[in-house]
Amino acid sequence: MQQRVIPYEQTLEAGGPAARVARRRLQHDAKHAGLWGLPLPVELGGQGLTLAQYAHLAEVEGASDHGPAALGSAPLLDVLMLSRHATEAVRERYLRRISAGELRICFAMTEPDTPGTDPTLTATRATADTSGTWTVHGRKWFITGAGEADLVTVLARTRGGAPEADGLSLLLVPTTAPGFRVVRELSVLGTGGQWEIALDGVTVPSDHVIGPPGRALGIAGERLRLGRVLRCLRWLGQAQRAFDLMCRRARSRTQASGPLADRQLVQQLVFDALLAIRTTRPLVYEAVTRLAAGDDARTETGLAKVAAARMLQQVADAAIQVHGAAGLGPDTVLPGLFRAGRAARLLDGPDELHIAAVARHALRDHAATLTPRTAPPPP
Amino acid sequence: MQQRVIPYEQTLEAGGPAARVARRRLQHDAKHAGLWGLPLPVELGGQGLTLAQYAHLAEVEGASDHGPAALGSAPLLDVLMLSRHATEAVRERYLRRISAGELRICFAMTEPDTPGTDPTLTATRATADTSGTWTVHGRKWFITGAGEADLVTVLARTRGGAPEADGLSLLLVPTTAPGFRVVRELSVLGTGGQWEIALDGVTVPSDHVIGPPGRALGIAGERLRLGRVLRCLRWLGQAQRAFDLMCRRARSRTQASGPLADRQLVQQLVFDALLAIRTTRPLVYEAVTRLAAGDDARTETGLAKVAAARMLQQVADAAIQVHGAAGLGPDTVLPGLFRAGRAARLLDGPDELHIAAVARHALRDHAATLTPRTAPPPP
Amino acid sequence: MQQRVIPYEQTLEAGGPAARVARRRLQHDAKHAGLWGLPLPVELGGQGLTLAQYAHLAEVEGASDHGPAALGSAPLLDVLMLSRHATEAVRERYLRRISAGELRICFAMTEPDTPGTDPTLTATRATADTSGTWTVHGRKWFITGAGEADLVTVLARTRGGAPEADGLSLLLVPTTAPGFRVVRELSVLGTGGQWEIALDGVTVPSDHVIGPPGRALGIAGERLRLGRVLRCLRWLGQAQRAFDLMCRRARSRTQASGPLADRQLVQQLVFDALLAIRTTRPLVYEAVTRLAAGDDARTETGLAKVAAARMLQQVADAAIQVHGAAGLGPDTVLPGLFRAGRAARLLDGPDELHIAAVARHALRDHAATLTPRTAPPPP
Amino acid sequence: MQQRVIPYEQTLEAGGPAARVARRRLQHDAKHAGLWGLPLPVELGGQGLTLAQYAHLAEVEGASDHGPAALGSAPLLDVLMLSRHATEAVRERYLRRISAGELRICFAMTEPDTPGTDPTLTATRATADTSGTWTVHGRKWFITGAGEADLVTVLARTRGGAPEADGLSLLLVPTTAPGFRVVRELSVLGTGGQWEIALDGVTVPSDHVIGPPGRALGIAGERLRLGRVLRCLRWLGQAQRAFDLMCRRARSRTQASGPLADRQLVQQLVFDALLAIRTTRPLVYEAVTRLAAGDDARTETGLAKVAAARMLQQVADAAIQVHGAAGLGPDTVLPGLFRAGRAARLLDGPDELHIAAVARHALRDHAATLTPRTAPPPP
Repeated sequence: MQQRVIPYEQTLEAGGPAARVARRRLQHDAKHAGLWGLPLPVELGGQGLTLAQYAHLAEVEGASDHGPAALGSAPLLDVLMLSRHATEAVRERYLRRISAGELRICFAMTEPDTPGTDPTLTATRATADTSGTWTVHGRKWFITGAGEADLVTVLARTRGGAPEADGLSLLLVPTTAPGFRVVRELSVLGTGGQWEIALDGVTVPSDHVIGPPGRALGIAGERLRLGRVLRCLRWLGQAQRAFDLMCRRARSRTQASGPLADRQLVQQLVFDALLAIRTTRPLVYEAVTRLAAGDDARTETGLAKVAAARMLQQVADAAIQVHGAAGLGPDTVLPGLFRAGRAARLLDGPDELHIAAVARHALRDHAATLTPRTAPPPP
Repeated sequence: MQQRVIPYEQTLEAGGPAARVARRRLQHDAKHAGLWGLPLPVELGGQGLTLAQYAHLAEVEGASDHGPAALGSAPLLDVLMLSRHATEAVRERYLRRISAGELRICFAMTEPDTPGTDPTLTATRATADTSGTWTVHGRKWFITGAGEADLVTVLARTRGGAPEADGLSLLLVPTTAPGFRVVRELSVLGTGGQWEIALDGVTVPSDHVIGPPGRALGIAGERLRLGRVLRCLRWLGQAQRAFDLMCRRARSRTQASGPLADRQLVQQLVFDALLAIRTTRPLVYEAVTRLAAGDDARTETGLAKVAAARMLQQVADAAIQVHGAAGLGPDTVLPGLFRAGRAARLLDGPDELHIAAVARHALRDHAATLTPRTAPPPP
Repeated sequence: MQQRVIPYEQTLEAGGPAARVARRRLQHDAKHAGLWGLPLPVELGGQGLTLAQYAHLAEVEGASDHGPAALGSAPLLDVLMLSRHATEAVRERYLRRISAGELRICFAMTEPDTPGTDPTLTATRATADTSGTWTVHGRKWFITGAGEADLVTVLARTRGGAPEADGLSLLLVPTTAPGFRVVRELSVLGTGGQWEIALDGVTVPSDHVIGPPGRALGIAGERLRLGRVLRCLRWLGQAQRAFDLMCRRARSRTQASGPLADRQLVQQLVFDALLAIRTTRPLVYEAVTRLAAGDDARTETGLAKVAAARMLQQVADAAIQVHGAAGLGPDTVLPGLFRAGRAARLLDGPDELHIAAVARHALRDHAATLTPRTAPPPP
Repeated sequence: MQQRVIPYEQTLEAGGPAARVARRRLQHDAKHAGLWGLPLPVELGGQGLTLAQYAHLAEVEGASDHGPAALGSAPLLDVLMLSRHATEAVRERYLRRISAGELRICFAMTEPDTPGTDPTLTATRATADTSGTWTVHGRKWFITGAGEADLVTVLARTRGGAPEADGLSLLLVPTTAPGFRVVRELSVLGTGGQWEIALDGVTVPSDHVIGPPGRALGIAGERLRLGRVLRCLRWLGQAQRAFDLMCRRARSRTQASGPLADRQLVQQLVFDALLAIRTTRPLVYEAVTRLAAGDDARTETGLAKVAAARMLQQVADAAIQVHGAAGLGPDTVLPGLFRAGRAARLLDGPDELHIAAVARHALRDHAATLTPRTAPPPP
């Protein structure tokens, strides 16, 4: 990451042919070095690490937005989903090429006109004709990477109506299919990379449904829970990077009164950032451990998500403050990390949802076994 | 603002010929309606409002980044500075045209390689030849509007060396002068509008020095204090706009459990935003009143600046949260307000500077007249 | 306050005969100096100041828990309530003596087993016999000063049942009446001054009902709104006192590295405390002004109450921190101010109630007049 | 704890003969049950648990102020200090009786007129006569349990002068020695249990010096580091107790709109409390692990101390808020937990000291190995 990926970041962000060359080069080197697809199955060309083994490496990869793609772990959630739930035809046709970084895939769930927090309200619809071919109509947005994807997994209602939980399905749609259209790139706090798409009568064959028709929510939930922890790990890597930049600046920048590192208000920013990272990390790893053990880990993933999002915004904010105006400018990665931190509090469900869900769960399960303090003392 | 400026915002931001046409049109309309240059002197085509009279209107204008330019108050600080301190030649040549919006002017103080918080370290230098012509060498950054300016006021050392407070001068430089170069547009958290410039042997005649040579800090300080309050007023307008958007969204967006406005966590965001605005406003107006009375109002402007910057970031952050993912996207003004709020904590001196300065002042002046509680009671 | 009241504080708090002597002495001196009952009506021996005239003096008096009693303004809410709503018999018998500090009166609303936030659930009951004599049964707690009071105003249901808003009445009960009993002094975070009482068949004549029977909530609401602002004014005085102590300590305490006042983390505590006081004060005065103008000022009193409670806890907390362990000990007034600040967030309704009420009100009244940013530009 | 200690709490706090009987009874039962002195050496009558084995039990014991004394772990720090550093005469005479709970011992370091944060400024002095007998003069305060102790370890200067780090010694002083005097019980935020003492010419024999004369700081530092983690463990137990009370109240208290547990603002308090506990605990255990491994764990103990103190104040504050006025009153343990949390931010060094120390350490050790983002990409 330090020697290969970070030095190429600006090239990759500039886009165009140079970016494509750089990306291919990095991928080639990762494969050559035996670092490709660390958490992907060995039979698909990955290194077969378990989630627990991969976790710390996910932090490291996540320090750069380009780390996961450069090292082949970017499609992990899709590869797992398709391995477990896709038809053999789909697996044969796409899975190895996705794992190898030859096909890019994205996941389309949120819709512009439906509250993103409740998938049962999904308005996108797919209907089957007698031959089993599905025709999809709808609109999706805030889809990472859709502008450059070859495939998109779309959540659509195939039966019943809102707010039924049953009747939703996942369909795999090639972006070359007639009726598929990229509407626009959405800036997220001023940066791109997220997209809005339209599906106007796109057709897909029946074997492109992922998992049993009507049962999308179980599959999506499984994906979201793992995705949440993966995201937290990457946020830890990003926060650590912001922390490192903050310390370097505080040590190197000198004012009339001495180095910034000697000022108590700077020390406080450093302390609070360190505290945020050191308290969030064990929470994330507890969620990793529980998920790996087959637990649904709702409380742990909820706590970890909220804590990690707050941590990233706080640490990036502090690092900017220590840099002064230069922290706002284009010469460091900090503005991107700060935007990522702010977005983190909303993407994957606003924090308020997790707060209420975790608390309700804690309150419901809270054992009523406290000894009243005013109980008569034992004889 | 509601009927004319805000509807044109996206046109103005897109730039190009359409933006130029729109700007001229808005300026023409403002002049026609008697709203041009509300705080500018009548003899320069303004409406002659005092600071206290203008204050509330500055909030309203500030709600849009384009308000002050559309209504002619944008160059207020420059017009006052030149009126008071420039030579008659400079005033004759530029002042009326600046006031009329025909010439654009900006102010260049901060430098890439010098701590922005201490102007005595300014590295830009100007030397006079025997004819009195000044030659300027140096580099400046984070200059609002430099890319489109006709004139730039540059802070340069004309005598002595750092960290002497004397020996700094302000020079007015036409951007067409040979040796003047726009280095790049600086993105500030991803948005443009701030610039980096280089002055490589730019020459200006001796009458382009503003105020007595060597005495720039007094003039710049006067400008900064007024600028600080003006900025706070505009931030109030921006925070009010974010608040309005938040309320509208909370009322109109409905989830399965009812409108967002019924959720306590949303109500808390609304309450805290309202509280921030309602507590910051009187502080800003107290600073206005004191400045208008000739007081230097260091404590009041310091308190107001820190409070207003926090307020804007907090209210914009809350408004984004209530909008969900749509709050991060390009369809509202919220990402821009949020960036403005974050930048506010750094531009014009990081908050830490103001915190330490105000506190030291409060501690120094604190009367030691408290009655000890353990004093013997009176007879 | 500085010369007379604060030096006597410890004597007054120790209680016993010395405290009684001191109190009488202070009251005598206040009357003699023409400072007695500043906001009380002239015809009752007060000085007749309006609320707006009294406001700043209420801050000053409030700096000590003993200020209002020493200066005769303590029974202001009771005097106004009785003046406006009591029968002539009650007014004749008690009002002048209450105003003169000869009779002490308290107000009993909250009950141990009923949510204090909803008076319609009041369980205390009063029933009238044929002669019109009321018999009261119930239990009340968190009543300031009940242990030393001569009279207590009791909220009781006289008709209908919970949660009807009608049917509640206020009855004036002499604490010498048979059936009246002080159950215990309640420590509030470890300090006394609040009491729990029982009314077991206490009887009061029909002319001891205050206002029209069944209409207590209107009278209580009027009292609570004024009481809320009065409390905020006193909290301002207390916060100012904590701030003064903090500054004095920071200036006088010296460590190896110099005075505490030179440390940035201390300066930050001073700054934030100053900011809290300077932003809260105008909010409180806006509520005063509106109440004085006859407005019900729900938003302003709600904002002011929450802000002032937070302010007091924050400033007292900071002042303790600057004092080190000595700030926790018995030698300064700070522990009392800190407890007062913490209690402030609960007494008179928990802050959560005010937050939700103010926000709902703001959301309901929010004009839907914002210009959409995407509106077509004017022709 | 639930069945035996907590039901006796109020009896123990009331003091007097009943408290003494209860304490002896609890101690007898603990010994009988094989639970006495869990972390004390087996040869002194303890159970010989290592720190790592004891850690979770320390949380449980710490939930009540009376837990450690009831279960015999209270003198752990003293027992370890004396075992390692006291003369054989002192160990023979006192150690077994201290371990058995027959003698009580306390530790006197802080002084009223010296900044508590810098022990090199200690003003208490001990001088030796020719026979080696030490005579001690000085005053100490904020000593836990001094009013009921049989022995007190006193930090005194025996050589040189402030601010030399060498020349300070620890002397074991029986509280029956002539010249020893309890000055007063200090209320800490209104509660007792801390004391001020005077030593006016107290003499102790030469074998009552603990460790080599003049080397107190090393021994005290060792004690403080372990003491800090032990305190954090107890604060975790206290926070957990406050959390349990909060959940029970939220579930059981019903308002017109339903149970408190259904209100989002209550859920947020529950979530944030749970998050604080779940993030602080691993930090404390990391410090335990490192200390147990012989590391000095400065960063970990500093982070843990600050985090745990904030956690306890926050959770106790939230639990009070959920209880309403009842949370301020005497019927729950919450006021005590809240005071403990507030005091925690000061005792054992104000948080500001730890913040600056940890940050300076982090900044000093921060490796300067970051790859600049703008480095030329590898060939």
